Amino acid sequence: MHPYRTHSCAALRAEDAGATARLSGWVHSKRDHGGLLFIDLRDHAGITQIVIPSGSSVMEAAEAVRVESVVTVTGEVVLRDGATRNPNLPTGDIEVRAKEFAVQSAAAVLPFQVAGQEHYPEDLRLKYRYLDLRRDKVRRNMMLRAQVIASLRRRMVEQGFTEFQTPILTASSPEGARDFLVPARMHPGKFYALPQAPQQFKQLAMVAGLDRYFQIAPCFRDEAARADRSPGEFYQLDFEMAFATQEEVFATLEPVMEGVFREFGGGREVSAAPFVRIPYAEAMAVYGSDKPDLRNPLKISDVTEAFAGSGFGLFSKIAADGGEIRAIPAPGAGDRPRGFFDKLNNWARENGAGGLGYIVFEADGGKGPIAKNLEAERVEAIREKTGLKAGDAVFFAAGKGDDVAKFSGLVRTRIATELDLIEKDAFRFCWIVDFPMYELNEETKQIDFSHNPFSMPQGGLEALNTQDPLKIKAYQYDIVCNGIELSSGAIRNHLPEVMIRAFEIAGYPESEVEARFGGMLNAFRYGAPPHGGSAPGVDRMVMLLADEPNIREVILFPLNQQGEDLMMGAPAPVESARLKELSLALDLPKPKPTAKTEPTNAG
Amino acid sequence: MHPYRTHSCAALRAEDAGATARLSGWVHSKRDHGGLLFIDLRDHAGITQIVIPSGSSVMEAAEAVRVESVVTVTGEVVLRDGATRNPNLPTGDIEVRAKEFAVQSAAAVLPFQVAGQEHYPEDLRLKYRYLDLRRDKVRRNMMLRAQVIASLRRRMVEQGFTEFQTPILTASSPEGARDFLVPARMHPGKFYALPQAPQQFKQLAMVAGLDRYFQIAPCFRDEAARADRSPGEFYQLDFEMAFATQEEVFATLEPVMEGVFREFGGGREVSAAPFVRIPYAEAMAVYGSDKPDLRNPLKISDVTEAFAGSGFGLFSKIAADGGEIRAIPAPGAGDRPRGFFDKLNNWARENGAGGLGYIVFEADGGKGPIAKNLEAERVEAIREKTGLKAGDAVFFAAGKGDDVAKFSGLVRTRIATELDLIEKDAFRFCWIVDFPMYELNEETKQIDFSHNPFSMPQGGLEALNTQDPLKIKAYQYDIVCNGIELSSGAIRNHLPEVMIRAFEIAGYPESEVEARFGGMLNAFRYGAPPHGGSAPGVDRMVMLLADEPNIREVILFPLNQQGEDLMMGAPAPVESARLKELSLALDLPKPKPTAKTEPTNAG
Repeated sequence: MHPYRTHSCAALRAEDAGATARLSGWVHSKRDHGGLLFIDLRDHAGITQIVIPSGSSVMEAAEAVRVESVVTVTGEVVLRDGATRNPNLPTGDIEVRAKEFAVQSAAAVLPFQVAGQEHYPEDLRLKYRYLDLRRDKVRRNMMLRAQVIASLRRRMVEQGFTEFQTPILTASSPEGARDFLVPARMHPGKFYALPQAPQQFKQLAMVAGLDRYFQIAPCFRDEAARADRSPGEFYQLDFEMAFATQEEVFATLEPVMEGVFREFGGGREVSAAPFVRIPYAEAMAVYGSDKPDLRNPLKISDVTEAFAGSGFGLFSKIAADGGEIRAIPAPGAGDRPRGFFDKLNNWARENGAGGLGYIVFEADGGKGPIAKNLEAERVEAIREKTGLKAGDAVFFAAGKGDDVAKFSGLVRTRIATELDLIEKDAFRFCWIVDFPMYELNEETKQIDFSHNPFSMPQGGLEALNTQDPLKIKAYQYDIVCNGIELSSGAIRNHLPEVMIRAFEIAGYPESEVEARFGGMLNAFRYGAPPHGGSAPGVDRMVMLLADEPNIREVILFPLNQQGEDLMMGAPAPVESARLKELSLALDLPKPKPTAKTEPTNAG
Repeated sequence: MHPYRTHSCAALRAEDAGATARLSGWVHSKRDHGGLLFIDLRDHAGITQIVIPSGSSVMEAAEAVRVESVVTVTGEVVLRDGATRNPNLPTGDIEVRAKEFAVQSAAAVLPFQVAGQEHYPEDLRLKYRYLDLRRDKVRRNMMLRAQVIASLRRRMVEQGFTEFQTPILTASSPEGARDFLVPARMHPGKFYALPQAPQQFKQLAMVAGLDRYFQIAPCFRDEAARADRSPGEFYQLDFEMAFATQEEVFATLEPVMEGVFREFGGGREVSAAPFVRIPYAEAMAVYGSDKPDLRNPLKISDVTEAFAGSGFGLFSKIAADGGEIRAIPAPGAGDRPRGFFDKLNNWARENGAGGLGYIVFEADGGKGPIAKNLEAERVEAIREKTGLKAGDAVFFAAGKGDDVAKFSGLVRTRIATELDLIEKDAFRFCWIVDFPMYELNEETKQIDFSHNPFSMPQGGLEALNTQDPLKIKAYQYDIVCNGIELSSGAIRNHLPEVMIRAFEIAGYPESEVEARFGGMLNAFRYGAPPHGGSAPGVDRMVMLLADEPNIREVILFPLNQQGEDLMMGAPAPVESARLKELSLALDLPKPKPTAKTEPTNAG
């Protein structure tokens, strides 16, 4: 007989009655019933009830053992009486009557309970993550993550991709967030960097002719933590395709995403491919966001015209000054009490707006402070434009450019939430396309890249040479699910002369482009295919599927929000001899005087 | 029609004749035949011949383009004449008559040729790795690597394992090689370390109840490069099993290894599971190595007794002094000329031995300098012990302990190589088991751990308390293929009291064990299952399968031997402001006076 187990703790059934079984696992719970001792024995697979009859020779050992100790139990599989069967447990028809009881590892008093659903402080959980991971919900999240990743791999291979490993010790990235640096002992004064993403390597893989690359890629950014962002490392489904159009990238990723979300969505609705494509400008106009949550049915309208030159002086003036007024519908909100509108008005002020004007539509026209001052035909025009009817209301956001767009997006979310209009149990995907290549930096009044400088401009070199830069769009796209951006992506600029011109427009002379991106530019001079790709965040996908707003709930051994591993004690000081080896010395910030300092993590 | 391709360059066949096809790829070669221009167009999948008829409107563009440019060709699929068909090419029955010819990316003059088999300096190849990867052999190695890893994953899942990602930013490891350090910007003066292996995390995963963990795990060691070791990062098939015995670990890994080597071995022989288990002491005695190459049929014998008190004074004295004499058979070497034996004698001297004595067996006894002084019945005893016959020879290694064992192993390899006895086209696996737990440090005369201090001693606490430490064996094992150690592994010590006692024997007080390994010890105090595992090197497996002695030939974008990425320019200096942010300053070594310095990489 195996020294530890003949079965898992989820394996035994009624038909095993009479057999001798040996199980190993953790003492999940103990109950004393009139001299009989019951133990729920738990392993990775499930739970089996162990019974120790009164007077048993193993009673003393079983009584002495604490919960979460690891034990090996050998005994007879016995059918439970009808009344004591547990239909909720796959092994609920039987129990194992212990004849032998060996303690493999005795548990000390626990810092928190493994059984049950109680909440504990996150730092306590992370310090004892090996206990936390025994808890049912955390464990299920980890298994879900593992299965999602395995499924992503399988689906990418089905799409003709091959997984390659790109370097983790590499060069500092010229763009984006802050790199983690790694001192190179053999090269005093020099440093490797951990990749923020394998962006350059995957493009070089295309130049190398590898055609369809993917990787469940570890990425590293030295940035502060957020709920949806780990402070150190994260994983993305990094992929790139040669000779692909933007539509082909979409058509390739869509079955992967739809498939994974259907496979692990537990019956929740999933957008069917092809996912909706929404131009950036339309997303900002209609959803007030470039990450629209399509579970929210509300659509924003531009009603500037209805207010231009109207009797409602505030909006009339905004329209005259080149601003816009946007209407956010609130279907069915007409019968809400005054307090509903006041609360939203206060919320708008707290969010930096002047307030939140509204009109309530009734059978005979508009009601409310705005409608009082607005001509009836203009009220009617707004009702028509927003497609509302009597009993509905409409809210207004007014202002300029991106500000009014973004605020109207906040209002859209808030109203749909208040009115409980957001679709439940659904994953709604879309692509945001046609991002502008450039934007005006409001501070410097100069033209900047608006997103990724390495995307191909729509229209290519000719567009760069002949069009208003602020009108040029890029083959750049985002994939969004339920208002969460899973990834940016792009058809890349693979032509050195187009890249140099694109940077010139953003104010970078050729010499600087060569100095900063020479490795990539050089590669493109030896035969580069047109190529593009994307890199949906794996952690974010699992968060969506697990319905967990906290990224640390879907990572096996996460750093805490301060970037510390409380279990292993990282980061930690190192001996000065180690630093000397690395040709480094500490240069610690001077302690600030206690008065007048601002709180800081890096104190 | 797709803007880039309707088919891959390996897709078209005779039955496609008459169709219009569009192909994209790299200009592999160009040939001018009496006005016709032939282009071999290459992509990831294969090669298709393009023909540009004389007088074609695209002739000028096609003539102008350099090899390795990326082009898109559209034209009619045409059957080749019988004589010009190429049976070696899957597309050899057809060619594409170009009607359109678009240059997607013009190639500059190449630093080396992609087509052909020419050798180029490694640093040149690595600087232009994106070109190097287009070459057939390198490309095949990369595809092999990808397929091996995918197969390993599939096979591990079939064995009931789940892949989990362990942290890359973690704590400095208390044991083993040198860690790479990563300054923690948010925690001035503190550092993360990159994992040398996920050893502690996989053990903690077992404590967490995850039962069977694996990972294709990136590992990092700040060590100098060797042919079989990358200077920075490498990958291992890291795995760990709860409630497993040593034999169960073997039985679980064997089908994975055998399966992968059969799948990708290209018909080479592969050891059938179960692989031979060889105790460490036997390996050292019989093969002169703890990494025996079992393709080598030679077995070493101990013939000390035959020389003890014999007429051959040198060996007689060594035997009297507690040394040993080992016999390495050389079947069929009896008819080799004197030069053969002299050459081996010189080789032995170059390798630090006094020489390499031998006996040639003839029908009427032994011949050679040793046999002259050795009694005939002792010569006969040696012949019997080594199982040799007339026409064979035997060589001798003499000395003490590990020295003679290791030297006899070198002789075994050398002789089998000289006599061409090493089995070809075979992968021969074995497990080395029963490693000693401790060894005597010859310098300090103290007891040290001989391998992994975290392995379970055979006999447990009782053995530690009652046996001679130098006699205690550990549940520690290596898996070896063709003389290459793919991995160590062990059943771990999961009992804090056993671990503390084990360290005490090696001279570490409990307080130090708690200080250095407290995280792990603590985890073991909350219910730890017996567990064990191993971590075969992925790069080494691929090297064996690809028959590549240089690890850089099986890595997509490797660092060079100096740990430099010549393509991306890493490592590199960073701006002092970046260092200041990290609370660090450079502390560069002073330039040494040029005289009397030793050469060093770290300058």
